[in-house]
Amino acid sequence: MLFEHDVAVSFGDCDPAGIVFYPNYFRWMDACFHAFLQDRAGGHAALCTALGARGLGLMEARLGFRAPVSEGMHLRYAIADITWSKRSLDVTYRATEGDRLVLEGHERRGVFVDDAAGRLRAAPVAPLRALLGA
Amino acid sequence: MLFEHDVAVSFGDCDPAGIVFYPNYFRWMDACFHAFLQDRAGGHAALCTALGARGLGLMEARLGFRAPVSEGMHLRYAIADITWSKRSLDVTYRATEGDRLVLEGHERRGVFVDDAAGRLRAAPVAPLRALLGA
Amino acid sequence: MLFEHDVAVSFGDCDPAGIVFYPNYFRWMDACFHAFLQDRAGGHAALCTALGARGLGLMEARLGFRAPVSEGMHLRYAIADITWSKRSLDVTYRATEGDRLVLEGHERRGVFVDDAAGRLRAAPVAPLRALLGA
Amino acid sequence: MLFEHDVAVSFGDCDPAGIVFYPNYFRWMDACFHAFLQDRAGGHAALCTALGARGLGLMEARLGFRAPVSEGMHLRYAIADITWSKRSLDVTYRATEGDRLVLEGHERRGVFVDDAAGRLRAAPVAPLRALLGA
Repeated sequence: MLFEHDVAVSFGDCDPAGIVFYPNYFRWMDACFHAFLQDRAGGHAALCTALGARGLGLMEARLGFRAPVSEGMHLRYAIADITWSKRSLDVTYRATEGDRLVLEGHERRGVFVDDAAGRLRAAPVAPLRALLGA
Repeated sequence: MLFEHDVAVSFGDCDPAGIVFYPNYFRWMDACFHAFLQDRAGGHAALCTALGARGLGLMEARLGFRAPVSEGMHLRYAIADITWSKRSLDVTYRATEGDRLVLEGHERRGVFVDDAAGRLRAAPVAPLRALLGA
Repeated sequence: MLFEHDVAVSFGDCDPAGIVFYPNYFRWMDACFHAFLQDRAGGHAALCTALGARGLGLMEARLGFRAPVSEGMHLRYAIADITWSKRSLDVTYRATEGDRLVLEGHERRGVFVDDAAGRLRAAPVAPLRALLGA
Repeated sequence: MLFEHDVAVSFGDCDPAGIVFYPNYFRWMDACFHAFLQDRAGGHAALCTALGARGLGLMEARLGFRAPVSEGMHLRYAIADITWSKRSLDVTYRATEGDRLVLEGHERRGVFVDDAAGRLRAAPVAPLRALLGA
């Protein structure tokens, strides 16, 4: 695993069925990615300054929910793999609760810069890769 | 479209890059599905009672982000299609901001019941389909 | 009432006790304030540009919860009053569900600008008051 | 301090002004209280079973924001004091970022039970106090 990020599931993260309200799983997946940026390169803000970018935004995000999770459990998110293309990177995640696999995830991200017309466009990601040493 | 659900994007839905923090898009996709349940069959709680279920939970969720969205914009989520399998349903979404396509989404959901051992399992979805008239 | 803002309560806004997870009430109170800014003066971003400010941030926030609210209900937030001091404004809210009073709220906000050292400080609010016509 | 709870502030917790979107501070205050319940008495669900209650819900919540917090910072929430009345408890919080005081908070909570008519009412809190040893 390239990086691990732990999450404690609280009462308020769960819905009336008593299990995690699923957008929270995406929130934690994003937090895992940002903790990885912090660990490798001082965080998103520092990277944006270095890259002249507005943000490392999303093109796609996906989660498969393999087992239910409820209040009081501890999740370990892991970045399993990063695959680099010219203008995007694909990040693969897994999350476990103890020995149980609970999530399989994927994000496709880009390095978004403002063009001359003020519109966001995806720039080459090689400079990000170099800064992350990934 | 089978159903439409409008969302006003507020300041607090956006991140330091000034665009929507992406887990919120999933939150609104879920809210669209629940508004559909309300419209067709009195809502999630009533359906769970009728079906003897704990919840209409998620097996998979996915979004493709086609254009950035920021504070003050109005999104229209639409359920484009529902495909029924034996123990799951696939719901396809699109969201637009004016004429712009901004999101393409998908959820795979099941009807989850507690089994004798207290574990959640996916029950046949035909009774849900009948109640929704879908 | 100076302004009204409607909210539909969804399944995912509620906790395992089946009632709204309380930070969401603050999220909607903030959204009410931002909808008011939109209505009166084109929104937070336009106001910040006009005022040379980073944001109309919070000094205090408070809610009294007068009745439980659950999935499928509709809340009407209202700005009942705004009291202006030199460097802050006090905004009073009420929210109702049909005829029931469900929330009484208060926010103290300031107009925050970056000083020469890059620290946020509260500027006089008279220019904001003029722009809002309040 | 009666209890401490640490929070890492992520990119997505922040708003377009680059500082924490304030409802998140309430979310973390609630998570601190639930972590305290976990630590002292096995968590909210176990306590509700023991007390015959629906939840330890809120009557009031308040935060004073003393200093701005942004991405990458670490907050330490602390329960400073609990004052017990007949049908409510007042919980006082402080949160710090390193040596800086950033938040002063308060929650008034009750032990809510369903009465014969299915309405929530606040029960005496002495049994909760005994279970928490507080």
